[in-house]
Amino acid sequence: MVFVKWQAVKKIGGYVVILEVAILDVKSGKEKDFELVFARAQQIIAGMDGYISHQLQRCLEKAGRYILLVNWQTLEDHTQGFRQSAEYQQWKALLHHFYEPFPEVEHYELVY
Amino acid sequence: MVFVKWQAVKKIGGYVVILEVAILDVKSGKEKDFELVFARAQQIIAGMDGYISHQLQRCLEKAGRYILLVNWQTLEDHTQGFRQSAEYQQWKALLHHFYEPFPEVEHYELVY
Repeated sequence: MVFVKWQAVKKIGGYVVILEVAILDVKSGKEKDFELVFARAQQIIAGMDGYISHQLQRCLEKAGRYILLVNWQTLEDHTQGFRQSAEYQQWKALLHHFYEPFPEVEHYELVY
Repeated sequence: MVFVKWQAVKKIGGYVVILEVAILDVKSGKEKDFELVFARAQQIIAGMDGYISHQLQRCLEKAGRYILLVNWQTLEDHTQGFRQSAEYQQWKALLHHFYEPFPEVEHYELVY
């Protein structure tokens, strides 16, 4: 899922890589369930047009906190292609009930 | 700086990779200065023991916002090795005056 050479993708691929960042706060006691469900759910994004790679990482300082990092070929691959798809409805049904509060998602572009 | 195969590092390196995450809010109008100074400052972390790779990314939605992602071999390489070093004093002098508010830094470990 995450075998990506960043600079190589950015330059050789001929498109600008966009990094989606979401800090996810999972309801207390639901962390293991979330990780199990995410293992399935990640196959949904991995199959979308414009998807490059992703990582889910667990916070060491704050229980229940995760960060989701997804690389997309373009901003629209995430905001339009994915979010307006039928697959997004599945993603939402699987994952959204774990979050409290509901996460804010931001997009970033590589500086260095 | 960022030619890392994540899973490969995690498995072959024989240590747990720790991801340092800092959302950086730079004072309005200081963004270009910050980027120029960061270009120099990044050489400081890149030379530290336990440093693996880093990225600085610019937020598309919020002006002046950046995310700094640094991979370290261990948590202590960042929290002790780097933060208690003379090099950290240089890093601090170069960069900390750009931030408002002062960023909270968190550490993460890979789930998927």
